[in-house]
Amino acid sequence: MTNLEKMGQNGQRAAFELGQLGTQRKNNALLNMANALVMNTDKIIEANKEDIANAKKNGIKEAMIDRLLLTPDRINDMSDGLRQVMDLPDPIGKVDRGWETVSGLDITQERVPLGVIGMIYEARPNVTVDAAGLCFKAGNAVILRGGKEAINSNIVLSETLRSALKDSNINPDAIQLIDDVSHETAQKMMELTEYIDVLIPRGSGKFIKMVVNKAKVPIIETGAGNCHIYVDKDADLEKALKIIINAKVQRPSVCNAAEKVILHKDVANKFLPKLFAALQANNVEVRGDTLAKAIVPEIVPATPEDWGTEYDDYIIAIKIVDSLDDAIKHINKYNTKHSESIITENYSASRKFMKQIDAAVVYSNASTRFTDGQQFGFGAEIGISTQKLHARGPMGANELTTTKYLVQGDGQIRH
Amino acid sequence: MTNLEKMGQNGQRAAFELGQLGTQRKNNALLNMANALVMNTDKIIEANKEDIANAKKNGIKEAMIDRLLLTPDRINDMSDGLRQVMDLPDPIGKVDRGWETVSGLDITQERVPLGVIGMIYEARPNVTVDAAGLCFKAGNAVILRGGKEAINSNIVLSETLRSALKDSNINPDAIQLIDDVSHETAQKMMELTEYIDVLIPRGSGKFIKMVVNKAKVPIIETGAGNCHIYVDKDADLEKALKIIINAKVQRPSVCNAAEKVILHKDVANKFLPKLFAALQANNVEVRGDTLAKAIVPEIVPATPEDWGTEYDDYIIAIKIVDSLDDAIKHINKYNTKHSESIITENYSASRKFMKQIDAAVVYSNASTRFTDGQQFGFGAEIGISTQKLHARGPMGANELTTTKYLVQGDGQIRH
Repeated sequence: MTNLEKMGQNGQRAAFELGQLGTQRKNNALLNMANALVMNTDKIIEANKEDIANAKKNGIKEAMIDRLLLTPDRINDMSDGLRQVMDLPDPIGKVDRGWETVSGLDITQERVPLGVIGMIYEARPNVTVDAAGLCFKAGNAVILRGGKEAINSNIVLSETLRSALKDSNINPDAIQLIDDVSHETAQKMMELTEYIDVLIPRGSGKFIKMVVNKAKVPIIETGAGNCHIYVDKDADLEKALKIIINAKVQRPSVCNAAEKVILHKDVANKFLPKLFAALQANNVEVRGDTLAKAIVPEIVPATPEDWGTEYDDYIIAIKIVDSLDDAIKHINKYNTKHSESIITENYSASRKFMKQIDAAVVYSNASTRFTDGQQFGFGAEIGISTQKLHARGPMGANELTTTKYLVQGDGQIRH
Repeated sequence: MTNLEKMGQNGQRAAFELGQLGTQRKNNALLNMANALVMNTDKIIEANKEDIANAKKNGIKEAMIDRLLLTPDRINDMSDGLRQVMDLPDPIGKVDRGWETVSGLDITQERVPLGVIGMIYEARPNVTVDAAGLCFKAGNAVILRGGKEAINSNIVLSETLRSALKDSNINPDAIQLIDDVSHETAQKMMELTEYIDVLIPRGSGKFIKMVVNKAKVPIIETGAGNCHIYVDKDADLEKALKIIINAKVQRPSVCNAAEKVILHKDVANKFLPKLFAALQANNVEVRGDTLAKAIVPEIVPATPEDWGTEYDDYIIAIKIVDSLDDAIKHINKYNTKHSESIITENYSASRKFMKQIDAAVVYSNASTRFTDGQQFGFGAEIGISTQKLHARGPMGANELTTTKYLVQGDGQIRH
């Protein structure tokens, strides 16, 4: 069994060193990591072939195998990702605020690394590189625990990154992979409160729920997305159609894809047949409540469970409501606090929706697909936080930091 | 058994309404609450007398009974506390940042309430009022669960606040008290993830550890403070003496009191006898390592456990080190990430200590006793966070908020 305590101690030591490195040396190391990936393409693909062969042997379905697959192009993409992280501003050392107190103390609140970050994730081996790069940029050591399907790829990828750290004269324990993929080790990792400052799970909604339930280490919950688009009575219906199709179809498997459409009754008769046709033309199964079915009989009846379900697939469910207030109430009840959008040309309706919807990101007249670190301009992301503590929405390097108060005095005591 | 789900639902409904109230109405309600406390002084003291009588009957020790005791003066203090919270700036609606993306979306990141906050705490009934006021100011509903020793006081205090909310035409479920003090109900509260957004425990280190271990709701850990003062070889020894005595003696029972002194060997011979005498004169038991005992034989030998122990009492332990690096290593190993101070006139030593110590607050030449919401200028605090997620150090109204991204477009879809 893997010695997690030892890994934890090594991680803490590396994190301490990393916290003192400075931007230049971190960026040099990121460049070395990026180059090392490309130079080791053959070795990485060889290891990946083993994973692919095992996956086929175990009857894993085609879509999953595609997620597992590494090609020279995909390795190049991971390498480019590290270069982009290198180009990001360094969040460490930034002073958020500062002031002098009545007792004459000078206080500054400065950004510092979180320390040791645990990443626990499912199949895709690119998470190994993406997470390692972003955690490193923010001065954190990372302990990675990927899925067993990608274990051979993950071992070679992490070894490649560690060699690059060694070549950069940096403690390679800044990036550690748990190569024991047993459930016992995963459970132990989730309880390693003494060494891991925060645990970030990446994967399916089911996987994340499992981690949230079992972990003792503080967690940042990511990814569950039951996103709604509300078409108001004063919507520009052309915009609405374009946005719904984009939000559902452009990439249905991701968390910021739309899963539900809420229609104001005043536009339902006119808009629903068009919407239905467009969704059908894009191979989307359309479910709906009885009011929707009354307008378009081909609609599949939605069950009560539908309203809380994230399909991640070519399926959408449509509900018709009497008012904006009903739409807000329904969305706040069933959403996963991820991303919600209103389509309207009405100023007051937009303002009310933006104020009253409880979610990480609330849109007016735009596709929910923009909830993404790249699209937000953060450069890269470690995930989309759907919790309210610490970080909410797309998490970039800045969200992988905490703060420290530095207080300078000249002998002050408290009276 | 208390119907916690029902309380959770009522809390969520109240939180939604509270989030839309605006500063003026919240401040009016806070004023009404402050007045109601004073007007109900007799009733509050009557209920408190029951708690005091029970405590005496149960043989609870004098210091604890003093914490439980409410007097007209103390009720006035609580009332003044609410008035101070009223005068604080409202954190809700503040825009932290905003920008336009390449796709022409306007993004603002705005401060919004956390939602429903759970407070679980031990004896002192003033926490009921302090916590309710600060949570309310930040637009949050609060569910309070105080210790059984203060239950009669807590019931009357919370009812008084709820009446004031009703009189202010505000949903009284913004402040709810769990009046069932059984362990089962506490455990159920700690698992109420569907309704409580964050749980804040207040009390002894042991109590907080218990909550951290048992809770499923995300927690903000507060309060454990094994604080160090390091006296550098280049310290101004007069400042050092004054600061150590202040940090240890001014109020030994609190988390920002100093528990350890780390002495550089070059000043130990000269400084330790003076320090020992001053500590003795203040009735402080002085423990120390063998090097310290060699200089002052009256020092009690410290055991290995001493270095990690928070005394909260008139006890201090002294360790002598060879270098600044050794001091930093020792502190980072044993501290609770609360508050640490270096006493030095040496610029580089100060800079290194401030950069390398891992704690919520790091001081140069000042008493650790300043780690406090009032002293920092936050007006009031809900506790001192010793964790790295979400908030670190003194937590005021601002730390009881989260953010929401508001994104405005005119039909943008993702390509």
